[in-house]
Amino acid sequence: MPNLQRYFIPDSDWYETEVIIKSDDVHHLTRVMRYKEGDKIICNNEDSQAAICKIIAVEKNVIRAEVLEWLHESVELPLDVTIAQGLPKGDKLDLILQKATELGVSSFIPYQAERSVVVWDDKKIAKKMDRFRKIVKEASEQSHRNKIPIISSPMKLADLIWESDHYDVKLFAYEEEAKIENHQSFGGILSKVERGQRLFVCIGPEGGFTTNEAKQLKDNGFHPVRLGPRILRTETAALYVLASISYQFEEL
Amino acid sequence: MPNLQRYFIPDSDWYETEVIIKSDDVHHLTRVMRYKEGDKIICNNEDSQAAICKIIAVEKNVIRAEVLEWLHESVELPLDVTIAQGLPKGDKLDLILQKATELGVSSFIPYQAERSVVVWDDKKIAKKMDRFRKIVKEASEQSHRNKIPIISSPMKLADLIWESDHYDVKLFAYEEEAKIENHQSFGGILSKVERGQRLFVCIGPEGGFTTNEAKQLKDNGFHPVRLGPRILRTETAALYVLASISYQFEEL
Repeated sequence: MPNLQRYFIPDSDWYETEVIIKSDDVHHLTRVMRYKEGDKIICNNEDSQAAICKIIAVEKNVIRAEVLEWLHESVELPLDVTIAQGLPKGDKLDLILQKATELGVSSFIPYQAERSVVVWDDKKIAKKMDRFRKIVKEASEQSHRNKIPIISSPMKLADLIWESDHYDVKLFAYEEEAKIENHQSFGGILSKVERGQRLFVCIGPEGGFTTNEAKQLKDNGFHPVRLGPRILRTETAALYVLASISYQFEEL
Repeated sequence: MPNLQRYFIPDSDWYETEVIIKSDDVHHLTRVMRYKEGDKIICNNEDSQAAICKIIAVEKNVIRAEVLEWLHESVELPLDVTIAQGLPKGDKLDLILQKATELGVSSFIPYQAERSVVVWDDKKIAKKMDRFRKIVKEASEQSHRNKIPIISSPMKLADLIWESDHYDVKLFAYEEEAKIENHQSFGGILSKVERGQRLFVCIGPEGGFTTNEAKQLKDNGFHPVRLGPRILRTETAALYVLASISYQFEEL
């Protein structure tokens, strides 16, 4: 894969042999990267396809680039992983989203857990969602992903359980339960997952799951897993899960 | 393992059946946790041993606790992992240290890489080292580690290579080389590592290794490994490495 800067361009800005680049990307191309006519970049469409493009015209708010060659590469995880994250404190979700994108997450669902300290109202959600979409777009470009992860608006646990219905394997990070004998290890479960399957992983907020939440998840087919014997902070759990999945399916 | 708050106490403050708690820990115990006489905590000594202790006297700058029961638990990784990290920009090292500690790192060596943008003088190092030691101590307590990782002062690559001499397995995160056929995969290498061995993993700064650095590492027995097919930021690489080691040795 050529090591060129990557941009995700909406399908509406693709023409037969040209791409039109607008808004924030123009700033990044001209001010941050200082690209000029003749420089090459990679443009991705919404269908996870990528092409090497050559910049042919730089204007104030618009850049035109010529499509030189379509690439047939994919760096996507060989399975589809959704992370549901209990709303954490402060700006932790920014970090989790950036890192989970680098590590190959397919979609991401924040949810209002019983022990979530923060409560997001509609106004806050609208503002946050713009920020989140920007974070995952930039992280996708940086890590040369073929597609941008989808971020859902924050849900309640019941809605999240409903969403998880179509997944092949459902897990939740719950060390208490995972201590009990005869539990399946994370590795034992992942070893049986097949490429192309859909995996749903639910992670608690700072205080973890309540017994009530754990019961609801178990009653709906979620398996408790331990992520190593050390206590991880909530923002580290998603990264452990995704790194392990990459290791198991891409590097083992 | 009892889920009590954990404190690392220097050996000089342990007596036959008592522990004396001083300085920042007193503030944490009384102001943050609001503990009182009768409350229980876990105290670790410098020898990686831990005991359940009961607070028997709270004074202004000193707390006395009685040793109730020595614990025979360990949550340490079954192998000894040193991470050498090329100095990154800004405060990224804070994040790397905190997360690497949670994930079980044994020791940590920052080094001045050719592409490190920052250069640290002695004054800056002294200030930073105090901060780093505080971060890893707190992260060790939070994640219920038995020992606190050791942080070296920043080194040059040549010193780091000299340090790595006594390790069983030496790796560096170098996707360029890892693309070449017949390279050993990260999983292939880890699968052959035995419990109790010492592993040294070198990670580049934001711009990665120069060809000169890569040559020096290879000439000195370091194997290049890829950490999944996506491009990871420098601060994500150490977390991927440690999560994969935990997965391989503790959860697979």
